[in-house]
Amino acid sequence: MQRLAKKWRRAGEDIGLVPTMGYLHEGHLSLARAARKRVGKRGRVVVSIYVNPTQFAPTEDFSKYPRDLKRDLKLLRECGVDVVFTPKDAEMYPDRSAVPTGFSTYVIEENLSQRMEGASRPAHFRGVTTVVAKLFNIVRPDVAVFGQKDFQQAAIIQRMVRDLDFPVRIIVAPTVREADGLAMSSRNKYLEDDLRRQATVLRRAIDMARAAVKKSRKISAAELKANVEKIIESVPDARLDYVEFFDPETLVPVTEVSGGVQMALAVFVGKTRLIDNERL
Amino acid sequence: MQRLAKKWRRAGEDIGLVPTMGYLHEGHLSLARAARKRVGKRGRVVVSIYVNPTQFAPTEDFSKYPRDLKRDLKLLRECGVDVVFTPKDAEMYPDRSAVPTGFSTYVIEENLSQRMEGASRPAHFRGVTTVVAKLFNIVRPDVAVFGQKDFQQAAIIQRMVRDLDFPVRIIVAPTVREADGLAMSSRNKYLEDDLRRQATVLRRAIDMARAAVKKSRKISAAELKANVEKIIESVPDARLDYVEFFDPETLVPVTEVSGGVQMALAVFVGKTRLIDNERL
Repeated sequence: MQRLAKKWRRAGEDIGLVPTMGYLHEGHLSLARAARKRVGKRGRVVVSIYVNPTQFAPTEDFSKYPRDLKRDLKLLRECGVDVVFTPKDAEMYPDRSAVPTGFSTYVIEENLSQRMEGASRPAHFRGVTTVVAKLFNIVRPDVAVFGQKDFQQAAIIQRMVRDLDFPVRIIVAPTVREADGLAMSSRNKYLEDDLRRQATVLRRAIDMARAAVKKSRKISAAELKANVEKIIESVPDARLDYVEFFDPETLVPVTEVSGGVQMALAVFVGKTRLIDNERL
Repeated sequence: MQRLAKKWRRAGEDIGLVPTMGYLHEGHLSLARAARKRVGKRGRVVVSIYVNPTQFAPTEDFSKYPRDLKRDLKLLRECGVDVVFTPKDAEMYPDRSAVPTGFSTYVIEENLSQRMEGASRPAHFRGVTTVVAKLFNIVRPDVAVFGQKDFQQAAIIQRMVRDLDFPVRIIVAPTVREADGLAMSSRNKYLEDDLRRQATVLRRAIDMARAAVKKSRKISAAELKANVEKIIESVPDARLDYVEFFDPETLVPVTEVSGGVQMALAVFVGKTRLIDNERL
């Protein structure tokens, strides 16, 4: 991959990267199309498929995370992607557990990663920034595309790019949703029929907040949070992990919610943890 | 600098980087020559001069670290360097103290950086890996040259390059010494006449260890350390910070010292902290 990227760069071809964990859905494909649009017909689009172990806690779903490489490759071929990069754990993290010879270098972000996903999933973002830095060094993209569905992740990667001077332009592409409003996610596969229906509660909570802000222009975050909690609690198998209202640039929580404020929430539906977010 | 590097890469020119903190001496110039040798006459050599604040503790000598850009530029011009890169703090660490908008991303190495310089200077290596990652992303070198005088630093940077997949070849160039054996260092400037004479004690300690290993083939690290301490203590203004005997690849301390073992020590001479190391 590094040799190929070097060859492309020498030929003056722009490179677009879409990092994924595979088990692709329409959301991923929209990122690949956004990358193609950016680099043009003569540019190169690389999609990486790698279920990155360092961003999962030992208690999380790393081993059962859905995988279907054959189907993924077919979808990406149809999508006109040039290269699908599928590294192995042993290549990405040589001897990770061996001290002192094994993998021991991490990229960490210390401000934006503290709350929300960072609070619920300690070490998650350190895994994300580390693997994305690695992918940037391997693929050397001019442009990399991330989904707005992982809003905090996109903000942290933009911060990393600014702070560490990666010469990469970050594009954040809109969340793609199912017909009933559920944000597309590979983890939706975990939801059987009844839970799948219950999962629309994230979207309903966002719609409620949006309507409330539209109606009263300004409304206290505490009141909105209580209302979100009520909606989530009304669904039998749903449990609120967090809901936050915050400045979309700094991720600092606001006490008064008005138009332009970002809302994000994480909800367990059965055992499956789902996230969603939107600008109000 | 990034625009220039991109132009060079498209033209197929190899880039060599020598990161320095300026106040250059023959040691630095030997690194620049090693870079030139690697990239060839048609390649490009960049020397960065930047006294990196994040690798100094608040109690250390950041503000009084010697600086003489005019003289440095003259030396580098004579040396045939293509570009001297001299960024400002405000460019390298935008709003470093501002939370949450300021600089907040660091590169950390967690194994090799724990002992010796890492133990004596907490956060030092996190500053080093962070600024070197930044310089790599700004200059995009094919080759970067570091001095063996900072042995642990070179090992950590090699680890970072391996772990984060930087497409950069690291060259470690031999320590350059004054006629009396003192390793060249910008901090030698701090030493007035009498202290400058006392500073040769680091070299004498190394010579003693080397002779002892040559004589007995195998000798206990504890015994050697005690002998080093005696030598240092015999000098009125010298105080031993640490001396270690270790595997040069893993930096793991050995209990029995034989040929091929690396020795490193740090000594305060007056208020000036000096380091040196050598393969025995």
